[in-house]
Amino acid sequence: MTMEFGRRLRLGLFGTSHGPEVGVTIDGIPAGTPIDRAAIQADLDRRRPVGRRLATRRQEEDLLVVDGGVSDGRANGSTFRAHVANTDVRREPYDKLRDTPRPGHADYPARVRYGEAADLSGGGIFSGRMTVGLVIAGAIAKGLLRPRGLEVVAYTRTIGPVDAAAPEGMDPAEIARRSREHEVGSVDPAAAERMAEEIAAARRAGDSLGGIVEVRAYGAPVGLGEPFFDSLESVLAHAYFSVPAVKGVEFGAGFASVRLRGSEHNDPFVFRDGQVRTETNRAGGILGGLATGMPIVARIAVKPASSIAVRQRTVNLATRQPAEIVVTGRHDPCIVPRAVVVLEATTAAVLADLALVGGFLA
Amino acid sequence: MTMEFGRRLRLGLFGTSHGPEVGVTIDGIPAGTPIDRAAIQADLDRRRPVGRRLATRRQEEDLLVVDGGVSDGRANGSTFRAHVANTDVRREPYDKLRDTPRPGHADYPARVRYGEAADLSGGGIFSGRMTVGLVIAGAIAKGLLRPRGLEVVAYTRTIGPVDAAAPEGMDPAEIARRSREHEVGSVDPAAAERMAEEIAAARRAGDSLGGIVEVRAYGAPVGLGEPFFDSLESVLAHAYFSVPAVKGVEFGAGFASVRLRGSEHNDPFVFRDGQVRTETNRAGGILGGLATGMPIVARIAVKPASSIAVRQRTVNLATRQPAEIVVTGRHDPCIVPRAVVVLEATTAAVLADLALVGGFLA
Amino acid sequence: MTMEFGRRLRLGLFGTSHGPEVGVTIDGIPAGTPIDRAAIQADLDRRRPVGRRLATRRQEEDLLVVDGGVSDGRANGSTFRAHVANTDVRREPYDKLRDTPRPGHADYPARVRYGEAADLSGGGIFSGRMTVGLVIAGAIAKGLLRPRGLEVVAYTRTIGPVDAAAPEGMDPAEIARRSREHEVGSVDPAAAERMAEEIAAARRAGDSLGGIVEVRAYGAPVGLGEPFFDSLESVLAHAYFSVPAVKGVEFGAGFASVRLRGSEHNDPFVFRDGQVRTETNRAGGILGGLATGMPIVARIAVKPASSIAVRQRTVNLATRQPAEIVVTGRHDPCIVPRAVVVLEATTAAVLADLALVGGFLA
Amino acid sequence: MTMEFGRRLRLGLFGTSHGPEVGVTIDGIPAGTPIDRAAIQADLDRRRPVGRRLATRRQEEDLLVVDGGVSDGRANGSTFRAHVANTDVRREPYDKLRDTPRPGHADYPARVRYGEAADLSGGGIFSGRMTVGLVIAGAIAKGLLRPRGLEVVAYTRTIGPVDAAAPEGMDPAEIARRSREHEVGSVDPAAAERMAEEIAAARRAGDSLGGIVEVRAYGAPVGLGEPFFDSLESVLAHAYFSVPAVKGVEFGAGFASVRLRGSEHNDPFVFRDGQVRTETNRAGGILGGLATGMPIVARIAVKPASSIAVRQRTVNLATRQPAEIVVTGRHDPCIVPRAVVVLEATTAAVLADLALVGGFLA
Repeated sequence: MTMEFGRRLRLGLFGTSHGPEVGVTIDGIPAGTPIDRAAIQADLDRRRPVGRRLATRRQEEDLLVVDGGVSDGRANGSTFRAHVANTDVRREPYDKLRDTPRPGHADYPARVRYGEAADLSGGGIFSGRMTVGLVIAGAIAKGLLRPRGLEVVAYTRTIGPVDAAAPEGMDPAEIARRSREHEVGSVDPAAAERMAEEIAAARRAGDSLGGIVEVRAYGAPVGLGEPFFDSLESVLAHAYFSVPAVKGVEFGAGFASVRLRGSEHNDPFVFRDGQVRTETNRAGGILGGLATGMPIVARIAVKPASSIAVRQRTVNLATRQPAEIVVTGRHDPCIVPRAVVVLEATTAAVLADLALVGGFLA
Repeated sequence: MTMEFGRRLRLGLFGTSHGPEVGVTIDGIPAGTPIDRAAIQADLDRRRPVGRRLATRRQEEDLLVVDGGVSDGRANGSTFRAHVANTDVRREPYDKLRDTPRPGHADYPARVRYGEAADLSGGGIFSGRMTVGLVIAGAIAKGLLRPRGLEVVAYTRTIGPVDAAAPEGMDPAEIARRSREHEVGSVDPAAAERMAEEIAAARRAGDSLGGIVEVRAYGAPVGLGEPFFDSLESVLAHAYFSVPAVKGVEFGAGFASVRLRGSEHNDPFVFRDGQVRTETNRAGGILGGLATGMPIVARIAVKPASSIAVRQRTVNLATRQPAEIVVTGRHDPCIVPRAVVVLEATTAAVLADLALVGGFLA
Repeated sequence: MTMEFGRRLRLGLFGTSHGPEVGVTIDGIPAGTPIDRAAIQADLDRRRPVGRRLATRRQEEDLLVVDGGVSDGRANGSTFRAHVANTDVRREPYDKLRDTPRPGHADYPARVRYGEAADLSGGGIFSGRMTVGLVIAGAIAKGLLRPRGLEVVAYTRTIGPVDAAAPEGMDPAEIARRSREHEVGSVDPAAAERMAEEIAAARRAGDSLGGIVEVRAYGAPVGLGEPFFDSLESVLAHAYFSVPAVKGVEFGAGFASVRLRGSEHNDPFVFRDGQVRTETNRAGGILGGLATGMPIVARIAVKPASSIAVRQRTVNLATRQPAEIVVTGRHDPCIVPRAVVVLEATTAAVLADLALVGGFLA
Repeated sequence: MTMEFGRRLRLGLFGTSHGPEVGVTIDGIPAGTPIDRAAIQADLDRRRPVGRRLATRRQEEDLLVVDGGVSDGRANGSTFRAHVANTDVRREPYDKLRDTPRPGHADYPARVRYGEAADLSGGGIFSGRMTVGLVIAGAIAKGLLRPRGLEVVAYTRTIGPVDAAAPEGMDPAEIARRSREHEVGSVDPAAAERMAEEIAAARRAGDSLGGIVEVRAYGAPVGLGEPFFDSLESVLAHAYFSVPAVKGVEFGAGFASVRLRGSEHNDPFVFRDGQVRTETNRAGGILGGLATGMPIVARIAVKPASSIAVRQRTVNLATRQPAEIVVTGRHDPCIVPRAVVVLEATTAAVLADLALVGGFLA
């Protein structure tokens, strides 16, 4: 199995949804890098379900425990390790689902592949809870990137039918501030309210909703990324698609570029404040897989959460008969708001890794 | 630089757009695997620009030369190597662009990153011509997968405003046949004609068009893929985004899943011919990063080609003044039809690699 | 930094000598593999200093704590993690050595490379204590290999001037039994006593001794290993030389082969009990980097422990003057007996990894 | 199969002994690095059998052909590729050996592992001829290292019973000059003559001889290497043991350290010309896996060549009867002199890779 990622900043996720804990090991943090526990905890808190209207009833403190790799608040050259405890685990709801795979979940292919030995309770290693380790890694990565002027922010762009883009010129600090202000993570207060209503409606129906997270990275050094197979888009998309429920990724104009002509899509180069910039940013800050110096812009589609309270059709693998199930665990009607910090963190971890690979952090 | 991909089936691309040749080394082909040169050449021919209406005027035979790794028509356990010659290279058009980076191309970030030493003529290693190696690898991978009942096909789904999906039940052989019949690669004759007209119009305007390629893989064994970081979506997207001009990737319902509720998006499990299947396939054949046994469905957005004949604004890096350029090389008004075989090949190479990783080809 | 090893069975060591703990994460243990905690603890106990005559006075229980990856006594598909606490840490002796690097230790190059931020107390990640993780991994690997008839044993071959080889035909179980019987790990009782006397003499002089560990692996499937860069010798030696204090590795006749002619060194093939075997085993069970079916035989030279009580000359990096130091920590006069289980474990981990790579455990 | 090596300077060997060619691809040479074809050819010439007395009768020009990655004499950022033709291939002698594996060769385990499909003619990918690619890579690596003051030299230390060490203070240029002067590669003219006589005697007997190559690397930056699994010793030994016929590797005092006490083995630190140095160099320039600034010293044991003209016993795998063979190909009575440049090159390639990993070439 493959719980590792990165070339120079090597992440290893550990734990399972319903085991005692989840966490991350990180190899390759340059010795001396400040490790800001408060900043990590703040991001872990952003990942927790917050408002009553929107959240799972699974309530966990998700308190950061650093197990190693830090001396006097700085990376000390040994493997960094940290975890949070799984404190609110109720295994029963999953046990009865053993023979009746839940639609939309990994249950069926995981059982075929790994057999009875695999711990699939709560989704096992396929659970969104594994992203705790990404959030921890991302907070450390942001600490590596910020002193070099590289800032990563994310916000909820779309929930179901409601779409609200941050204006292109909006300051990253402003995006960060606004997206934290409202529990759905939107930067537009009016849209945020409509999004929350959509989520509440889905919740009342025992159903779920999907959405789109937009990530922007400002200040990436020109040339960051590696040609061809380790292009910025390749490595970012690889990491994004590892996050459970992600089903689409686009950069810059993305799928909309299909309806533009080349003359409309190409971004003209200009000088701005003595720097080479592009007038527009349809490329999403990436040409040839390398950073152009413009903001890196990615949009990630998150499917509606698979765990819903409505009755669903499935099969009984033991009896080989049709079956019905109602998934009774505690689940979010919409995981998009919680995915914001996860995808922001994932972006930071990838950019820090590529910055180390390319010698940009030397 | 990173011209390598794969864990067990290791591809290494070599050459540059305007060097003597481009090609691929492949490590890890099981000894004894039949290597069908005619099939490889057929795929290379599909990658070549065909009709006068649609194509670049750069004309190359792209004749396959196998340099090693094959004995008596079978992989012999040593590194496979093959190339095609670059026979129609005209370097001049690029040389004058040295100080004026072309909008939409890698010129600017590549020059900042790699300096004068980088060979960027014709795009260097950032050129679409590097995909020749992917096509060769994909043809070999298809030969590995086919005996296990795994078939990969691709077709042009969208060109500019014209979209035509293959019906969900269409046979893969039929998709393959139809997409080869019309030069644009569509499976719908009427749509194909409209697509061709759109391309011709863009060509007349000295402009370019983008589009969407849809890839389908039939017969993947249940459980193919690795959890989390090497999920099917992760590794496929990684490879897709390495292909120049790709700016978006989605699986199954993809970005459209955002507007569905969970109850609409979850695919109910059913028995069909004694097999566990899903009634619908919004998951695109992938749950938890593993194959479900349903067709794997990916859509890849290809931006309008960056090389256009219309005058564009840029900067002169030497004089640090605004500048204008007209890119006079020979270029395609729409690369989507040629990307079909590239993305089909890329898919096959990834699936074969993951099948080797997972022990499915043992 | 690079605390990871293996392609399919991926080890990640964590902790530091004087931090709260040391341990290992293991990715890639096939789900369902039995995890025998008693066997792991037994190997950890073998690694502990035993007799008063021979050991460091640093006394730690080294009790195994399994943190994840196991359900109902079997690997469950998530990352395996385990650690032992560092309970007997005294930091002072090391702090005063900050400016006066200890001869024979990593202090000086580590400080130049990693600066003040590196945690070098007790050797940090350069300490022999990091091998705890190897022992844990090796015990699990032995559990993977044994059901396939592959048995790994090691013993103390040489201490200082005393050399005692196990007879070629000695049964692996007998080697294992005997080497556990005497605290020095020799299979020859008389030699063991002489070895113990040599160690005791060195201890009395405040000095240290080196030696040679011999590892034998029985029952490796013919063909195990990968050609060229992942030859059995290459991967084994890579891992052996990671173990602190190892300065030489040889297989089969090794350095002594230099004095043989080819006709003496080549092992004639014969049939024995219907199996292809070689009459002699100068190849140490490896030809062309692949297992021949004969016992794999490796000898590993362990230098005399660097920490000694006698006064040594060094430099003061702060004052840039010559200096003298006496290393007052608690140290072994001879680490060879404790290295036996470490190198046995390392061998098992490598063979299990290569067996997974080659499909021998499918 | 695994024909690749390195993390940042990625080598891929291709070809087979009796195919049309052998060569190497190299990914990761910094763009702009001078590629000195004459220096590469000079090293290829050193690898060729030279004197009539000592050499195989297989005579090949081994003329370097650079296939890509170079523009105007410098690495251009695309994959470097080069090969030499196999011009003097006679396949017959091998074909008759198909069922009677040659003692000392990979024939038997390779056939068990890879079956009939593997091309084992002339040893296939197990042949010493594959080291042509290492020599090419090493020559380029030396060009990367030399401007940073890092010089790698190797010489024949031992042939059969004749051992002649270069004095510790001998200048690297002098070692290089002397080892090139006499065909056996020794730095001691009298010993060289005795070595040549030993080889000639073995040749007359239809037999072969082994020996030891000593490699020294001067000027490695303090701290080069990575902790634990990518220690200098680990990565160097990994690469050395990939070279066919290598059966032992030691650094510094190596196996002899076993007979020293710690007080004799530890190298005292001293200031010399204002630099931290050690008075002796029993550590072979490596502590804790990192370079100390002293010369890196490795000795590599090369077994007597397996191909000998005397009658040998083997088995017939088809008839399952005992058999005898006489290997009639053209072979070296002693490959040690030719291994000198191969191991020197291997060392340079590893050091350049680790220097790139550690940021020492930035």
